[in-house]
Parts: sequence; structure tokens; C-alpha cells
Amino acid sequence: MAWRGLSRHTLVRAPEAGVSFEVRYFEIAPGGFSSLEKHAHVHVVFAARGRGRALIGDQVVDLDPLDLVETPPFAPHRWVNAGEEPFGFLCTVEGERDRPQPLDDAEWDALLANPLTAPFAY
Amino acid sequence: MAWRGLSRHTLVRAPEAGVSFEVRYFEIAPGGFSSLEKHAHVHVVFAARGRGRALIGDQVVDLDPLDLVETPPFAPHRWVNAGEEPFGFLCTVEGERDRPQPLDDAEWDALLANPLTAPFAY
Repeated sequence: MAWRGLSRHTLVRAPEAGVSFEVRYFEIAPGGFSSLEKHAHVHVVFAARGRGRALIGDQVVDLDPLDLVETPPFAPHRWVNAGEEPFGFLCTVEGERDRPQPLDDAEWDALLANPLTAPFAY
Repeated sequence: MAWRGLSRHTLVRAPEAGVSFEVRYFEIAPGGFSSLEKHAHVHVVFAARGRGRALIGDQVVDLDPLDLVETPPFAPHRWVNAGEEPFGFLCTVEGERDRPQPLDDAEWDALLANPLTAPFAY
């Protein structure tokens, strides 16, 4: 679950803010990436600046500002900067949520066996 | 509670999406504005494109892309396009929430008595 060039700011924290959800702003530097992980809780990600690319389950999606994607429960996912400037995005989650987990061997094998997803398996 | 030039798209709907919150994308055309209203539930607003201005309680805030603001419970609020292109923002709320209400007479009087907030009282 290694990551590189990533910063996180929790902008809205539950329950202090009077809501059940949390809003975090992430920024990934050029060449950077988030940890490869999975968990039960859903991520709602809204791209805000720069260009990103994401592994979500067995799919790869490009993210430009104003794009929104969700990670389904237990879908392995990783966010990568795909441009020359910082890639910034908002990520909203439930305040009460489970901890991220590393992938199991079968999930690693599946990622590596697919040419589309193999570049995200590190 | 009149509004002008406003569009709304619900991007993430609770509980269908497996979350307790909803994410909506609003866009206000140049010259447009949202309804002046209040309610118990909190809005978390993240500016995404264009330039906006907001009345929140007795304050007025300018909104550029990447700015985030919250509306406290029962604070009267209105979103206005303050530029020449569409003003777009993400608004996250609890899935279960109360309905918007119009302002009462005392709240109208307070808005009108303050030169800062009077331009939002229509």
C-alpha cells in the first residue's frame, strides 16, 4: 500500500460538522500515486484540478476536472497523476467506515493478468 | 424562494449508492441565482467552475474554484453567479434531511438592515 507525492486535507469532519460524512481534499504531485487498497466503504471522488487516472476494480478511468466517479465496496483502487501539474480531487466518505486493506494474492494475480490493469499493480 | 438560471443534477443518490449522503452538481447561468432559503440540514459546497458569491447567514463570501464553504443549520443562504461564465458547484447533503423553508419577517428585516446582505434580499 505504498504511495508517493500525496497530500490529504480533511475539510469537513464528522460528526463535528453536524453531518455523517467527511469531505477530504487530496492532491497528488506529478509522478505520484495513492496506495493500492480496498475496503467496504464507498469513495465518491470529484476531480477538481489537473489530470488523473484511476484503477477501480478491473477498470481504468481518466479524470478531468468536473468528472465524478465512485469506488464500489471492496473494489481495489488507486489514483495516479496523469499530467504535468498537481492532480487535485475531493473524496467524500461516510464518517463511520472500515479501514483500508491490502489486496489478496488472487486480486494481485487478476490485476497482473490484465494488460489494462497491470500498470497499476505495484 | 424564487430562483433563476439554475440547473441541478443529483450525481450520487442515497441510499441507492450505498452511502448516507447525496452529491448534487448545480450550475447557475450568468445573472442567475438560487432560492433564498433556510433549513436544519447542512450544505457542504465546493466551487468547481466560474465565479460565485454566497449569502450565508449574515456573511457574504466569494467563491472561486477549489473553495469550500458550509451553511450552518438554519442560516439563510443564497448562491449567485458573480461572473461571465456558468458558476458550477458540488453540494453534498445528508440523504435524510428536512425541507427548505422561506425566511420569516425578522430574518428579512435583518438582511435588509445590513448593507452587506441587503443585495441578497429579493
